[in-house]
Amino acid sequence: MNSFQFVNPTHIVFGEGSVDQVGKLTANYGNTVLLVYGSGSVKKTGLYDKTVSLLQEAGVTIHELANIEPNPRLSTVKKGISICREQNVSFILAVGGGSVIDAAKAIAAGVPYEGDVWDFFTHKATIQEALPLGTILTLAATGSEMNGNFVVTHWEENLKRGAGSLHVYPKFSILDPTLTYTVPRNHTVNGSIDIMSHVFEQYFSLTENAPLQERLCESVLQTVIENVEPALANPEDAAARANLMWCGTMALNGGLISVGVQNDWASHMIEHEISAVYDIPHGAGLSVVFPNWMKYVYKERVDRFVQYAVRVWNIDPEGKTDDEVALAGIQATRDFFTRIGAEARLADFGIGSDQLDRMAGEAVRYGNIGNFKRLDKQDVYNILELSL
Amino acid sequence: MNSFQFVNPTHIVFGEGSVDQVGKLTANYGNTVLLVYGSGSVKKTGLYDKTVSLLQEAGVTIHELANIEPNPRLSTVKKGISICREQNVSFILAVGGGSVIDAAKAIAAGVPYEGDVWDFFTHKATIQEALPLGTILTLAATGSEMNGNFVVTHWEENLKRGAGSLHVYPKFSILDPTLTYTVPRNHTVNGSIDIMSHVFEQYFSLTENAPLQERLCESVLQTVIENVEPALANPEDAAARANLMWCGTMALNGGLISVGVQNDWASHMIEHEISAVYDIPHGAGLSVVFPNWMKYVYKERVDRFVQYAVRVWNIDPEGKTDDEVALAGIQATRDFFTRIGAEARLADFGIGSDQLDRMAGEAVRYGNIGNFKRLDKQDVYNILELSL
Repeated sequence: MNSFQFVNPTHIVFGEGSVDQVGKLTANYGNTVLLVYGSGSVKKTGLYDKTVSLLQEAGVTIHELANIEPNPRLSTVKKGISICREQNVSFILAVGGGSVIDAAKAIAAGVPYEGDVWDFFTHKATIQEALPLGTILTLAATGSEMNGNFVVTHWEENLKRGAGSLHVYPKFSILDPTLTYTVPRNHTVNGSIDIMSHVFEQYFSLTENAPLQERLCESVLQTVIENVEPALANPEDAAARANLMWCGTMALNGGLISVGVQNDWASHMIEHEISAVYDIPHGAGLSVVFPNWMKYVYKERVDRFVQYAVRVWNIDPEGKTDDEVALAGIQATRDFFTRIGAEARLADFGIGSDQLDRMAGEAVRYGNIGNFKRLDKQDVYNILELSL
Repeated sequence: MNSFQFVNPTHIVFGEGSVDQVGKLTANYGNTVLLVYGSGSVKKTGLYDKTVSLLQEAGVTIHELANIEPNPRLSTVKKGISICREQNVSFILAVGGGSVIDAAKAIAAGVPYEGDVWDFFTHKATIQEALPLGTILTLAATGSEMNGNFVVTHWEENLKRGAGSLHVYPKFSILDPTLTYTVPRNHTVNGSIDIMSHVFEQYFSLTENAPLQERLCESVLQTVIENVEPALANPEDAAARANLMWCGTMALNGGLISVGVQNDWASHMIEHEISAVYDIPHGAGLSVVFPNWMKYVYKERVDRFVQYAVRVWNIDPEGKTDDEVALAGIQATRDFFTRIGAEARLADFGIGSDQLDRMAGEAVRYGNIGNFKRLDKQDVYNILELSL
């Protein structure tokens, strides 16, 4: 393994009823809060009312930014920054899934910054400070509840870009698995694929001698695979929901499961280009792209894919070539995504080949991407073409 | 799994050469430092000189507390508290293994406390604040470099007791695996057994539905088992040393691998009684006690021990009863400890039966111990007797 530094200061409060602590936790950091949430499902479930009432009991003044988009938009982030400045907001509370949390992080970083917040996404500026933020997570997927990363879409320019900083790690994250009982079926599917994809990006690596990190990755993958179908069959399966939620956090809590290991992240960048143009759900895009990325790159280090097939999918290597074992693991991935109801092709979203060249070009805008295999524009094009 | 809270603010700086950062890291927290270390091996290896020179370059004033015992003593802790008070020390830097770090934590907690620091170990007081501390770790074993726990021995009363607080998590811990190249062979052995024992305490649990936590525990165990013998065969095996060091930290970094899972810790309490009376190394005591604890308790939940045998030791369950599989896993544990050169019996230390009753009584001083099987005084006596 390589040298590394690791720190993750987020305080996790996990379990049924943990939302009850939001007033006290928030009041530790500020008395004027921007409450950030999405399309209104938090109002239907009663979580909004509960949160507002707990904050009010704690003596906190509330301002609101609703309607965060599934791929949160720069224009929405800027609206949030304006509210915070005008109202002297001292703390941001995100109530929702990854998009809501990501928007909250971008707002938190943007408030004390004098320039355009988009600078953080275009490598023009680095985050030096941020408003403190906290989260109430409503979807097992993103890991954003315990890391410093966030992704925002500049819709007018069809650009989806990420940024990150230790300054935007949530101060606390409230993880109540029962809040995920009511999410639409496809959110559970896409969220689970998102979790697995986060692990893939860390697991398929050329870094040698990191056996613990590899096993931690495999542990998360196996546990997600075991729990998705029970959660789909019975959305109120408490154990399955709790396991998926904790897997989502562990999959991307500041990179703990892959410390000292070079990550890849090319598939995420490719998916970002797709959803920047077509606004499809991130997890669904990953379902399409990842198995094709795997097929495209596995020969770089077949042994890694053999290990994946054997340890994660229990493929019996007896009498098979390494290539056959590796491909069986990749096929098992595709079959699993299909079995739980995820899309397998861009055509499933009505996406054809007309924007492939543009998306491939945008993906390598800042240089070639990925580390397991370094991908240039033609490689990205080929993977997108495999995905049609 | 159960509800839980988790936070771990320690900043890890891992890799060869990471000691170079100690001056800068320390100066972030204070300009008057108490340097705490052990019997002088840090002087032989040059680590002492290097650390002092880096601290001096960073403009830090140094006071010293040397000769921390392998089971650090209350009297030594009190000496450290006095120095800190007299010299207005603002930061404590521990350079060593678990004993040194534990002593540093006790000192850090004791300095701002008006009463007797022993109060923290006898449930008379709770730690409300502490001096900040950092560590340079020289042995893969304890986990103390990334948690809030510490154990101190009141030698005059033959009492070895633990305490803990979020306030004594190290601000930073420098983990350079090359520092462990020179440790005596039995320290590598005992440290590895200590790591495995920390995992056992979290892994053998009656808590249901924690499959990720179980796999994380198994991952640490498997990785330790793979790496001990290479490290013993070639003390400068960089990969083995790095893997053992990171396993040690992950095994007990605030309980991350067992969040929401009821821990046991009876074997540790039993071992503490042995080393409080006989001053044997902690890891060696655990080598003696743990397999006997396993044999004594496994029938409470044979399936857990079957899982352990199959997943960690690759015991083939084909044609065996559950009891046979479980016992084969326990025997594999004992055989491994013996193979790497650890003691198997109290007799190996010249310890007979004369203090068994007293040690059993002290172990349950605050009530029965353990959770996998709740142990009363007679149970502890029986386990000690199995260990003779």
